[in-house]
Amino acid sequence: MKSKKDLAIVLVSGGMDSALTAAYASKKYDLAFLHINYGQKTEKRELKAFNEIAKYYGVKRKLIVDIKYLRDIGGSSLTDSHIKIEKANLKNKKVPSSYVPFRNANILAIATSWAEVIGARHIYIGAVEEDSSGYPDCRKNFFDAYNEMIAKGTKPDTKIKIETPIIKLSKKEIVLKSVKLKSPINLTWSCYKSNTKACGECDSCALRLRGFQQAKLEDPVPYKKRPTYK
Amino acid sequence: MKSKKDLAIVLVSGGMDSALTAAYASKKYDLAFLHINYGQKTEKRELKAFNEIAKYYGVKRKLIVDIKYLRDIGGSSLTDSHIKIEKANLKNKKVPSSYVPFRNANILAIATSWAEVIGARHIYIGAVEEDSSGYPDCRKNFFDAYNEMIAKGTKPDTKIKIETPIIKLSKKEIVLKSVKLKSPINLTWSCYKSNTKACGECDSCALRLRGFQQAKLEDPVPYKKRPTYK
Repeated sequence: MKSKKDLAIVLVSGGMDSALTAAYASKKYDLAFLHINYGQKTEKRELKAFNEIAKYYGVKRKLIVDIKYLRDIGGSSLTDSHIKIEKANLKNKKVPSSYVPFRNANILAIATSWAEVIGARHIYIGAVEEDSSGYPDCRKNFFDAYNEMIAKGTKPDTKIKIETPIIKLSKKEIVLKSVKLKSPINLTWSCYKSNTKACGECDSCALRLRGFQQAKLEDPVPYKKRPTYK
Repeated sequence: MKSKKDLAIVLVSGGMDSALTAAYASKKYDLAFLHINYGQKTEKRELKAFNEIAKYYGVKRKLIVDIKYLRDIGGSSLTDSHIKIEKANLKNKKVPSSYVPFRNANILAIATSWAEVIGARHIYIGAVEEDSSGYPDCRKNFFDAYNEMIAKGTKPDTKIKIETPIIKLSKKEIVLKSVKLKSPINLTWSCYKSNTKACGECDSCALRLRGFQQAKLEDPVPYKKRPTYK
């Protein structure tokens, strides 16, 4: 029997935030999962996490898109081998070197093209504003502006909206919600640097570890080091 | 001696509109050319036109990006071999089958990423609203919304603006302006269907031929057929 639910696309990087975002979307909609390889150094490990999370949620409709051009364009420590991935500095208020210029706008454009073709009306993205690395394309007002732009740039009968269910959560709240909604944290991967054991020192590891420490829970993923973050 | 002019990126598909757009941009700025292969059937012919137009304008800074995913996503006669390219119907007010879902939003996201890295402050695109195929992502209000979204989604010190110098021109005016500003019409390629002689019958050929006919000039590009369009 064909489902009568609306279809939603979830952007699943393979990290903890996108896995929780999928948990929110799965309560209301049938899901299609989109994963983007953009030449990041941990591409293979993230793809493994993506496929395992898709299996966990029983998602058959998957699209994996390679946009290696972001590596050619460069400008980020995540994609450019000449720029070193910095150790985390969670007190730093500047945009860090891991910022991939305008990455989310690229990813959301792909998702919107796919949504228009498969008839999905919702695009879920696990962006986090408050407790994030300070990327400009992770803020609520960016997504509001993006929704306006989608309304103007798609066919008149198309209704597509970007949904950001965890944008206001802290990493501590994300950890606690993940447990509550049975998001498969053990299958996720967040480290920017390593494909085997998480480094524990990059921005992404630091934010994740601090979230677990504040939630007084142990992260089930293996680490090389587990420094304490404040 | 290093140029003191600002840098502008021009999106050059290889068609008549983008060649004229480059003519406008070249009056004010140093140029970088961006070309997108999105799996369209005339990809190679367009790339040849792109390179020849770049040579004409003396542009050294070029970026060619492959986004084959638009073909995987499908939904357009330009990229999907199962959908036939229709004969032009210039009276049709519906969005035609050649519409590539949300294509311009994808292309502009790439341009903006590149602009942020190379320090370009202007992105020129040869979109035409009035006398176009009716694509939703070719309208002035779409580009206005896009500029808002760029302002929200890039670093605070980044100022990037999309410029659409020919958006209000008719195809007739584009032909006349191209002659006046010495845009290299003879090097351009517009046909959606053929790589050798232009078919004369697809939407893009029909709009172009009608422009020349209304301007009472002969298109220097070879055609299989040159029907009269009203």
